[in-house]
Amino acid sequence: MTMESVKLTESLIKIIAETGAGDTKPAFAMAKQGLLDYLGAAWKGKAQPETDRLLRYVSGSGQALLLGSKQGASAELSALYNGYVGHYLDYDDVNQTVRGHPSTVLYPALLAVVSLRPVTGRRFLAAYVIGAEVMARLAQAMGKQHYRKGFHNTATLGVLASAMAAGYLLQLDTGRLLNAMGIAAAQVSGIRLNFGTECKPLQAGFAAQKGVQAALLAEAGMAAGHTVLDGSQGILALYGEGVREDTREILLGKWGRSWELCSRGLWFKLYPFCSGAGHIADSARQLYQTGNFLPEEIQKVALVFPPGGDAALIHRQPVTGEEGRFSAEYVAAIGLNGLAYTLENFSPKPVSAQLRQFLERVERQYDTTVIPSEAAIPPGRFALVRLYLKDGRILEHRTDIPKGSPGNPLTAEERFQKLLDCCPKGIAPQLANAVETLKSDTDLSSLIKILKTDE
Amino acid sequence: MTMESVKLTESLIKIIAETGAGDTKPAFAMAKQGLLDYLGAAWKGKAQPETDRLLRYVSGSGQALLLGSKQGASAELSALYNGYVGHYLDYDDVNQTVRGHPSTVLYPALLAVVSLRPVTGRRFLAAYVIGAEVMARLAQAMGKQHYRKGFHNTATLGVLASAMAAGYLLQLDTGRLLNAMGIAAAQVSGIRLNFGTECKPLQAGFAAQKGVQAALLAEAGMAAGHTVLDGSQGILALYGEGVREDTREILLGKWGRSWELCSRGLWFKLYPFCSGAGHIADSARQLYQTGNFLPEEIQKVALVFPPGGDAALIHRQPVTGEEGRFSAEYVAAIGLNGLAYTLENFSPKPVSAQLRQFLERVERQYDTTVIPSEAAIPPGRFALVRLYLKDGRILEHRTDIPKGSPGNPLTAEERFQKLLDCCPKGIAPQLANAVETLKSDTDLSSLIKILKTDE
Repeated sequence: MTMESVKLTESLIKIIAETGAGDTKPAFAMAKQGLLDYLGAAWKGKAQPETDRLLRYVSGSGQALLLGSKQGASAELSALYNGYVGHYLDYDDVNQTVRGHPSTVLYPALLAVVSLRPVTGRRFLAAYVIGAEVMARLAQAMGKQHYRKGFHNTATLGVLASAMAAGYLLQLDTGRLLNAMGIAAAQVSGIRLNFGTECKPLQAGFAAQKGVQAALLAEAGMAAGHTVLDGSQGILALYGEGVREDTREILLGKWGRSWELCSRGLWFKLYPFCSGAGHIADSARQLYQTGNFLPEEIQKVALVFPPGGDAALIHRQPVTGEEGRFSAEYVAAIGLNGLAYTLENFSPKPVSAQLRQFLERVERQYDTTVIPSEAAIPPGRFALVRLYLKDGRILEHRTDIPKGSPGNPLTAEERFQKLLDCCPKGIAPQLANAVETLKSDTDLSSLIKILKTDE
Repeated sequence: MTMESVKLTESLIKIIAETGAGDTKPAFAMAKQGLLDYLGAAWKGKAQPETDRLLRYVSGSGQALLLGSKQGASAELSALYNGYVGHYLDYDDVNQTVRGHPSTVLYPALLAVVSLRPVTGRRFLAAYVIGAEVMARLAQAMGKQHYRKGFHNTATLGVLASAMAAGYLLQLDTGRLLNAMGIAAAQVSGIRLNFGTECKPLQAGFAAQKGVQAALLAEAGMAAGHTVLDGSQGILALYGEGVREDTREILLGKWGRSWELCSRGLWFKLYPFCSGAGHIADSARQLYQTGNFLPEEIQKVALVFPPGGDAALIHRQPVTGEEGRFSAEYVAAIGLNGLAYTLENFSPKPVSAQLRQFLERVERQYDTTVIPSEAAIPPGRFALVRLYLKDGRILEHRTDIPKGSPGNPLTAEERFQKLLDCCPKGIAPQLANAVETLKSDTDLSSLIKILKTDE
């Protein structure tokens, strides 16, 4: 252990605490897009009757915001609920570096604070930018094995990032922010085995809950270890690939000169399912739209990935549409049968007999010989849908940059259309306007008021 | 992966759900000792002014019990607070198989439920017996590497065990108990790097908080993965040594025929510091009591352990008495200087200059040639204090079975004396009486009433 690595945790905390809210301004536009997309996804999640169970569970414990409700909750349970509904449909944004969902963790933690105290729009956005930055850098510091082993980055990295975001929002001094990191490090958890169940969105909510709790406990004066990222017993070693030669550079290098939100940015979803299936969806839809085949003419479908490129897609023969959110086979089947990528087709209802039969004809393949596009998103990823028709024809389509990802972004109109589709009538324009004015030094009370609209 | 291992999670849940409350009766006596010891340790913890910060933080969010207070909190924050004060002084019980503290996690989770709903004494004790059983078996299933790597067993295993205990108390059916396990598995966390700070007791509180939350969310109908212990991505693989040949036997074998509380039982502490230093304390005290030397005659002190036997004792040159709770050197120095093992000497105050000088003369050694006693507690553990005096004499004392551990238990009088020392005036006899009557089928309202005494 070098002298430098001993101080990794302290160095990161210092650089966060010393970052001026104004320094984060270049990333504000993306932060606002993220906020609106999160609010849309969350409002649509909240509209699913199944999420009422959690609403009943959390409400009445305090005054903090519960999205789309006049009721309130404690700061912790507000964050849990708003994180849960934000991720319920897996319709919220993704950051590739994180290999997970930043906004549905960070914004619920921040909104829990904001709904209880006056905060300026500038500091609110800055806290988000810093949270996203920390989440992306910690993802790189953990290394790829973290997700591959079975951890759920949104949850594990989310608790640390949301603690830092909430801590920054609360303007904790360096000592307290160090304690917040230690308290958050005590709670790093979340596993991929819960994917395909509503515990996945719960895990996003837990990360927000624990993050805001860590920041508030640190503000209240609670202490913790100050070296939790460092050495052979720190969280990088326990959960990831350990502290390496380049860890310091990954965590601290070029801080403030290139925000993650400006470089890689956010991936906004067009479809309500796991982004890992986005490539497949684009290709299946493109193939169907050629009109060159009828679904019943298909003998076999091969879905081709680079090795590990389908890790998030854990269901091969989904029993419900909900499981289908994590099924390459199901997403392909929907597209190739000319069905729509609507919520209706990804609900807890059983998969139809016709689709179940079709699924039996779909298989996955891994190809190490395909050279991924330079611009591929995520880097090195592609997916190819290859149809073997009964008459001997072979049709295929390959996607390297799925629609909605930073390399193929939604237009402003498409983003607003998604917000319109997601929110109760009349809310979307109000939200868009309130978020636009967030750059000012005024507080967020008008936004919070809209978010409490109960319809 | 064999067919058997695929169903590990389900098998464990089934056996828990089908356990009758009466079947656990052989372990009730130890469960009651554990309850009284926990309540004493917690009341003494609550009396430390530093813990008021957390009391202020949690109070007012609901009606669940906050020990020693007329105020209430949400079920989650009640469990957090009662777990925190229970472990604040590290004065609460230990189970060797767990290599951690069962009662300060399990009882806070159970009391949070009990203070909100009527429950019989029998089911309350049974839930505790089952929680302790699950915690010990999961510790063995995780394997020794889990703690050695840097995880904090009390916290990591505690969340799973308290979810099962609370779920059993709530009489969840098999499906819901499976969901509770999945939701708990989403929250397995806690690190040893936070030892020596108040985040250690916080981690115990977090485990109770998350466990009760997992059980209540499952009761509310929230779902999760049903194979979270199984396979290469389950928590045994992610946090421990993975699913092995003998994992099924470890988790399920002889269930109900030999409860952990009847076989290994609980270790009740005589001293308010980490049990890992108990051997050292006994030997240091014995040596001092011989009267064969004066502290200033000591030239060097060697503390001899088996390799790894001092893993919990992370501070070698503690700066405060609080850090001294995890310092073999400090515990030895206190005893060899004829000072008392009182709370006063393990407070956040700085270590005196005189003791700091003494600490420089203390060193650790590891000896693989010593044959541990057959009856050693924990198995394979010993500690030897060897004094090198300025006049050339060498004095030594070795401890294999520390006072308070199951092989050298406190008497009923010593246990009651500890309760008297810990509780406000007049409370101890009331508590002892209320706990004695717990075997009945009446609810726990009289116990809860005593616990709300605000002094």
